[in-house]
Amino acid sequence: MNFEKYYTNRAKPLKASGIREMFKLMADPAVISLAGGAPDPALFPNEELGKIAEEVLRENGTKALAYGTTDGYAPLKEALLERARKVGAVAEGDKIIVTTGGQQGLDLIARVVVEDNEDIVVEAPSFVGTLNSLRSVRANLIGVDMDEDGMNMDKLEDVLKTKNVKLIYTIPNFQNPTGITMSLEKRKKMLDLAEKYDCLIMEDNPYGDLRFAGEPIATIKSLDKTGRVLYVSSLSKILAPGLRIGYIVASGEVIDKIEIMKQVNDVHTPCLTQMIATEFLKKYDVEAHIKKACDVYGRKCAFMLSCMEKYFPKSVTWTKPQGGLFILVTCPESINAEELSMEAVKNYKVAFVPSSNFATDMSKKTCSFRLNYSMMPEEKIEEGIKAIGAMLKEKLGE
Amino acid sequence: MNFEKYYTNRAKPLKASGIREMFKLMADPAVISLAGGAPDPALFPNEELGKIAEEVLRENGTKALAYGTTDGYAPLKEALLERARKVGAVAEGDKIIVTTGGQQGLDLIARVVVEDNEDIVVEAPSFVGTLNSLRSVRANLIGVDMDEDGMNMDKLEDVLKTKNVKLIYTIPNFQNPTGITMSLEKRKKMLDLAEKYDCLIMEDNPYGDLRFAGEPIATIKSLDKTGRVLYVSSLSKILAPGLRIGYIVASGEVIDKIEIMKQVNDVHTPCLTQMIATEFLKKYDVEAHIKKACDVYGRKCAFMLSCMEKYFPKSVTWTKPQGGLFILVTCPESINAEELSMEAVKNYKVAFVPSSNFATDMSKKTCSFRLNYSMMPEEKIEEGIKAIGAMLKEKLGE
Repeated sequence: MNFEKYYTNRAKPLKASGIREMFKLMADPAVISLAGGAPDPALFPNEELGKIAEEVLRENGTKALAYGTTDGYAPLKEALLERARKVGAVAEGDKIIVTTGGQQGLDLIARVVVEDNEDIVVEAPSFVGTLNSLRSVRANLIGVDMDEDGMNMDKLEDVLKTKNVKLIYTIPNFQNPTGITMSLEKRKKMLDLAEKYDCLIMEDNPYGDLRFAGEPIATIKSLDKTGRVLYVSSLSKILAPGLRIGYIVASGEVIDKIEIMKQVNDVHTPCLTQMIATEFLKKYDVEAHIKKACDVYGRKCAFMLSCMEKYFPKSVTWTKPQGGLFILVTCPESINAEELSMEAVKNYKVAFVPSSNFATDMSKKTCSFRLNYSMMPEEKIEEGIKAIGAMLKEKLGE
Repeated sequence: MNFEKYYTNRAKPLKASGIREMFKLMADPAVISLAGGAPDPALFPNEELGKIAEEVLRENGTKALAYGTTDGYAPLKEALLERARKVGAVAEGDKIIVTTGGQQGLDLIARVVVEDNEDIVVEAPSFVGTLNSLRSVRANLIGVDMDEDGMNMDKLEDVLKTKNVKLIYTIPNFQNPTGITMSLEKRKKMLDLAEKYDCLIMEDNPYGDLRFAGEPIATIKSLDKTGRVLYVSSLSKILAPGLRIGYIVASGEVIDKIEIMKQVNDVHTPCLTQMIATEFLKKYDVEAHIKKACDVYGRKCAFMLSCMEKYFPKSVTWTKPQGGLFILVTCPESINAEELSMEAVKNYKVAFVPSSNFATDMSKKTCSFRLNYSMMPEEKIEEGIKAIGAMLKEKLGE
């Protein structure tokens, strides 16, 4: 039976991502993965969470195992609101909804506000998970180039002038895949433009807490006076992605609509994982946990950058993140990053993600790629960077 | 700011369900709830799951807390396939995907195969969660009446002849909200019609294991030779809904497409809850657990039916389920079930769900309502049925 004819126009264009294909090759434990986007597993508080889980099920098992409310477990909502308040992301009249990971938050917003063929602005390059969610609601993706301090605002205004853009998607802190942080000036400018051209902004801030250098910059949500910023974050990068705890903070009216969409999507996020996360946030020093993660990532990032200085050819450039998990490497145009990454994983067992995965047009070859420094120990980072450097030097004749 | 203009045509028609509104009133612990659709909380294996959770996090915490694969935790997939095999729901070339509750399974199928304005057949009445998922992809819902042995096949064929139906949605066992089980003859007929008119069938079987009377009937999936049945089930009714573990079994090609849609939706179902469910299925006697649940529900159902015989007026009729969680009550047409249910919860603290919630056209008043017998102890069941009976007798003058 040929199923192709049954698929919707929503589903047809969705392809298994190149990252996932690479993840299959990475099942080999010998592979040095600079490809992922997850926290260092050594930082997971396994034992603490195990104790909490046992306690939750023993003392409050019925609540943990029964149906919960769609908007989330009330004490978790309060704890997450507290985190959002710290970055000014909660305005009067706002509500919060707990989502099954940040991804569901982004996907629910897409379903609620993005109509077929609507123009949606994204950073070029941007997070593939959101791009695919937007593709699945048939958005017309428009990528706007990034400068060192975030999206180019002149180019953004050019787009807003000529297109009827409903939503701007941005990851202002330590962007995925570039590691770039948007300046305060640009955050204000983006908000001004959104007001001028009547767009919503989806501010995705999963990495914001993971700052290891420089000073924090106000969230766009904290600058918003009109309620047009929908703020999405998660516990995936500061606690554990496998728990799948994300959240959206936005105007109450919008959250009510998102809640109804979530109800048709998965009824609610599992109660047990919500309750475990709540107890961790309440009983343990989460700020100390984050501080530890920042120390580790700051050290690993500095180490990876020093390896790149040492092993990469001179014609290759890269971003210098102040936090988060990623560095973007840009090679001379003669380099085909897709081929490079396949060669690297097959011949040298080193994995990283070429930028085409983060592009609005995935079919174009690129000469840049994303490196992750959070997951591997330092000796593996050095080994991986050395191998990539050798490949690049050979190809570039440097 | 008025957000209405930003909402998609997908989101606009979705309203908070009447059931949810009732759930808010039910927050009062004094309310006798015959409204829910959840297992008896007394059956939750809290302690066993607590031990398992602690063990999983202690021994295998990194796997439980890291990102997992989108299709699900491999040992859970195997354990769930085993359950599906028991009801013949696994054909050669089939695959399984773990979903965040059965609801996500239904919703993913809707996103993958149901295009805007496509004609979709559902039982009339049917499960509101699926109806809303189908509404959210802008399906044109066509309800086909139920007989005592399932959907009326003549009426189904009339629809298939005149409309271009892509998908038939059915809950063949102990249907929600009617409690009706489809006969083997009708299952075969539905499959024949689906082949003749080239439709897919979404077979939703969350209650199938909860049979407390009569003999099991073959799943439609087990009769399917062409791969047009997409089989959805979950652990919500036999283990615990709060864990949010569901699954779809279908032709591998379709599951691959669904997997990509799930990736944009929530990346994967939480690893921890998947691993806990796996260990429970492996280490504990799940059949004994189900047998115990069937005994409890069979007893409670018989008890509720006996109370209805005793307290309900003669002009009222009801279904007699052989399993599952629900009875559908039909009153003379003078009764407005929506008003009755609001009066019952306000004045008598008894909650149940009027059938309009399960209708393709929710705006029409009905004279029938759904009763659940699984969640309340027997004395509460009697108290609730007695109150409803008294209200009905007064209204009907019997």
